[in-house]
Parts: sequence; structure tokens; C-alpha cells
Amino acid sequence: MDKHIRLEHGSGGVLSRELVEQIIYPALKNAAYPALKDGTDVSCSPSMCMTTDTYVVDPIFFPGGDIGKLAVFGTCNDLAVSGARPQYISLGFIIEEGFPVADLSRVLSSIAEAAGEAGVAVVTGDTKVVGAGKGGGIYINSAGIGEKCFSGDLDPAGLHIGDAVVLSGPVGAHGITVLGAREGLPVGKSLVSDCANLFPLCNELFPFGASLKFLRDATRGGVAAVLNEIVAGLSVGILIRESDIPVSPDVEAAADILGLNALEVANEGVFVAVVSGDAADSAISKLAGHPAGKEASVIGTIVADPAGKVFLETRIGGKRMIDLPRGLLLPRIC
Amino acid sequence: MDKHIRLEHGSGGVLSRELVEQIIYPALKNAAYPALKDGTDVSCSPSMCMTTDTYVVDPIFFPGGDIGKLAVFGTCNDLAVSGARPQYISLGFIIEEGFPVADLSRVLSSIAEAAGEAGVAVVTGDTKVVGAGKGGGIYINSAGIGEKCFSGDLDPAGLHIGDAVVLSGPVGAHGITVLGAREGLPVGKSLVSDCANLFPLCNELFPFGASLKFLRDATRGGVAAVLNEIVAGLSVGILIRESDIPVSPDVEAAADILGLNALEVANEGVFVAVVSGDAADSAISKLAGHPAGKEASVIGTIVADPAGKVFLETRIGGKRMIDLPRGLLLPRIC
Repeated sequence: MDKHIRLEHGSGGVLSRELVEQIIYPALKNAAYPALKDGTDVSCSPSMCMTTDTYVVDPIFFPGGDIGKLAVFGTCNDLAVSGARPQYISLGFIIEEGFPVADLSRVLSSIAEAAGEAGVAVVTGDTKVVGAGKGGGIYINSAGIGEKCFSGDLDPAGLHIGDAVVLSGPVGAHGITVLGAREGLPVGKSLVSDCANLFPLCNELFPFGASLKFLRDATRGGVAAVLNEIVAGLSVGILIRESDIPVSPDVEAAADILGLNALEVANEGVFVAVVSGDAADSAISKLAGHPAGKEASVIGTIVADPAGKVFLETRIGGKRMIDLPRGLLLPRIC
Repeated sequence: MDKHIRLEHGSGGVLSRELVEQIIYPALKNAAYPALKDGTDVSCSPSMCMTTDTYVVDPIFFPGGDIGKLAVFGTCNDLAVSGARPQYISLGFIIEEGFPVADLSRVLSSIAEAAGEAGVAVVTGDTKVVGAGKGGGIYINSAGIGEKCFSGDLDPAGLHIGDAVVLSGPVGAHGITVLGAREGLPVGKSLVSDCANLFPLCNELFPFGASLKFLRDATRGGVAAVLNEIVAGLSVGILIRESDIPVSPDVEAAADILGLNALEVANEGVFVAVVSGDAADSAISKLAGHPAGKEASVIGTIVADPAGKVFLETRIGGKRMIDLPRGLLLPRIC
């Protein structure tokens, strides 16, 4: 096997077979992916959920994770916040000519480890090779399907004044960590990405039934984007309190130096939930039983006014609007 | 809306929302994709099939198709040759900074048209933007799931001497067409890609039950790669007859001039099937009832000797081995 990917590894011929049969498939093979075929049979329930996400993060390895772990957990998290238990995922690789095979193997073993942790089976894949200067080392798409295990309505149209806005963990670590790793910034040396599997946390909230009203992971655009999506077009607004938002001192310091708002920075292991006010304390204590949820907090409330807007009450008692992020915070963050 | 994609369109903020809500989602929205969410609920049967494929074809527009049509039909075809009726697909876009929004819209309408023709619903998607020089205009991943409608075994281990090797249509048109379009070659000006939805043809073969023994679309590596995959490691071989292989005069002329073997060139609307010898005539007549199958032919036979190899009987009565393609025929052909 060559040490670097060549265009011929994407040709469909001898070298394609060698790459897939010697490197990729052995790393991913599992009981639900018993053979290399055009498609793989999967057992499903009548009510499933389907999602997809493509990962173009730069750099592909960063403290706390890599593009492989991200591709597995990110797709599983999209299923989890949709009320589904992740079961099967596909993987589509676009590898740039010259990419080190050792790096590919490292990404593949990270994928296998993350899939094991998430209890999801890789069942099918595809590998394309593009010429040097036409890719970014490696890009990974993963699509996923999972059985619905929450049948309630997660549409924000059902929100009421007094509902509690819950954040499952501290904000901004993924984005700040990737930025630090990419640019070699003298900040955040001790930071690690929050990249985590969120199904176990979501699964704690599903038994709340109709008291669980909204759930979404706060990836690109961060918590600010999710909060704005919740209230867009609604007759209610959101008020969050700065002092209640969990943020690590390292993230806060790095964000300050870089002039970033941690609420706008991508997370890969944090979700926003809205629960009815009377369920808030119980929800927090359920989430706190998990490593990724031990800093879960009620950060705000659904309010009457101003409708369709998100406001932050600052530590010193002022108020400012949190808008949908504008411009370019960080390209290729996930 | 800008006329060209900017990095900010992948940021998760205002411009991301604008791109998705104004350009992408309106083009793809359908009854099974009622809202933009992290994942979409889908109805499934107990026995489904899942597949994925990524498309990096260059150029993205070519006679007879484009990357969007390819992404829909290619993924549907992988389900079809796995014995499943395509139902739902996901789409993951990687768009390079500077890509014309008008080209994106053209690709999206091609996707919608192809999905309509294939009876498949786009149910979820994701869009990432990478910097100039880190992509190829647009790359598309599509994953698909579909209900199994053929429960028989399509494993070549069940082949017997005397089984017929069927080709659903003429070889090589896709690869030669894309090559001609890319390089501006003075050949194949009248050629069009064979890009087609193969489920209707496959569905004609499913009622053959145990007489249908193998099915695979002949994409990268062409018919030569599929035939070699069939017999790899088996105690039988394949003998095909050059005079029985359907090939258009244009493809044959272009392949001759370019020094290519049409059997090694990628197709996007052609499959190889193996059926029991007594079912061959009936299979051909069923396939011939469809536009993509009107040149369907029995091109060869499963033979005892030499085991594990594919031989071609030439028009003048000679024999030569057809090996798994080596080296690089055409990068980014699909």
C-alpha cells in the first residue's frame, strides 16, 4: 500500500480495491456491515428519522477530537435532537491526492471508536479521490437513520411564556479550540473541543413528554443562532441571563482576546432545550448525571416581549439583543 | 442574494440561512420534506437498504446530465441493484467559494426533476462552503434508503456454469462523454451520458426470484470491474463475446481514438445481471420494454474454466483476459 493517496485510488480499479479492502473496510467492518456491497440491508421500525451532515473541519485533528469523531457524533446528535435513537450511518469520503494514508487510518479508527460509543453501526460507504488543490485533505459526509423514540412535537410553535431555556453544557469550546489549533493562537492551549455524543442526554429528556418542547444542538452559528431560530416568526421572545450561561474561564478568556462572542461560536456537544417551567429543575438534575451534562443550566425564559427576538441580561443588569450571527466567524469549523 | 457563493454562506448565520431558505430548500421541498430541521421523520418497512455515494464529476454539466442528476440516479441505482425500491435520499453539498449561484440553482432543479422521475423524496440536506482552491465547484454526497423488494440472494457465490451474463445497455457512454466534455476532445460530439434511473429495469428482474443471481451497476471501473468482482475468488469464470456487447458506434470510435477500452469506462445507467440460462431470453425481453434497456443483451456465460477470471472472445475468434482495470483511466468521472 502506498503511503499517500493517489488519484488512482479513486479509479474503481485495482488501487481502489486495495484502498477499500485493506485500509477502509477493515477499520469499519461490523456485524451490521458484513460485506462490501452497493448497499446494506438494515432493520427498521415504522417510524424513523433521517439526517445528513458534511464535515470539512480544518485542521482535521484538534484537541478533543478529529473529523472522524465529529462525523459520527455530529450526525448522531442531529438524530438525537430530532427525537431518534441513532442506529445506522453511512460515510462518504472525499480524499485529496497526497493525503497521508496514516492520517486516514487514524481518522478511521476514531470513527470506529465513536461509533462504538454511540452504539451506531456504519453500514455503507463511498470513497472518492480528487486532485491536489481540489480538496482539503479529507472531507467526510455522514448520513444517519434512527428509530424515533420521542413522539412529541418539538416545533417551537408550541412554546409558552414561562418555559425554561436549558443549555446542556458550557458554550464555545469546540469553535475556540479549532480556531486555536488552526491558527496557532497563543490562547486556549488547555482547551479541548466539546465534541460528544448527545443521545444519552436527549434520552433523559424524552420521558418529559409534552413538557419537552424544543431540542437542537448548537453547532454552526452557536447558541445565538439556535435561540434566534426558536423565536423567528413567533409571538414570544427569549430572555437569557449572562450570569447563568456556563462558559469555561479558558473559553471566556480566549473569546475576549479574539473579540468573539462565545454564544456565536460552534459547539459539537451542546444542545439547547426548551422545557415547561415546572419541569426545569428535574431536567437539569437528569442532565447533570452525565459527563457532558454536568454543567447543564437554565439560561433563560420564554417571554412575551419583544416577540421574535432574543435578549441577554448582562451581569451588570443591562440588556442587549442577541442577533443571528452575521458575517464570517470561522470557516470550516465542523 | 449574491451571485456567487461566499464563505459566509457556510457560517451558520444570516447568509447561511439566506442561501438555504431562498435557494436550496425551495428547490427541493416536497411533501416528505415539510420543514428545515436537523432530521426528518420517514416511514419505513422492517427490511430496508441503505447506501451512499459522493459525486465529484468534472465538469459538473455534461451532455445528458449533470452532477445533480447523477447524485440522485446514482444513489437510487445502488439501492435498485441491492434489491430495494428507492424511497428517501439525503443531500450533502460542499460548495467552493466563488461558485455561481445560478449554477447551484441549475443543479438543484436537475436534482428535483431526477427525484421526481425516480419517485424518491429528498428529505434532508446539509451545505458546507470551503475556500477557493479547496474544492471543485460543487461536490455532492447523497445517501439513500429504500424498502427491500427482492428478498433473494444476490451473492455471486450462488452462480452456476451456464448462467447468463446480461448487460442492460450499451457500454461506455457516460465516461467517454464526460471525458470529451472536460478535455474538449474532437471526439464524441454527438455522445450523451447514459445517466439513467435503473430501478424500473431492476424491478422487471425481481420477479425472476432465484433465477436472478447477481445485479450491479457498472460505474467506476466499468463492466470490466464488475465482471472481475463477480468471479473474484470463485471456482467459476466468465466468458463474454465481443460481438454481443452493445456499444454505440460513437463510443467505439472515441474509445479507439483515445486508446480506451469501453469495457473499463464508467457507466451511470447500465447494470450487469447474472440470471440462470433458461431465464435469459425472458429477462432480455422484459428489459427491452424500457428506454434504458432496449439494447439489453446476453453478453456471456458463467464457465468452469479458468476459475476466477474473465475472458473475452474477440470478433475474430481469439481470446483475451479482461482484468480489473489498472492505473488511472479517468479521475472525477462520477
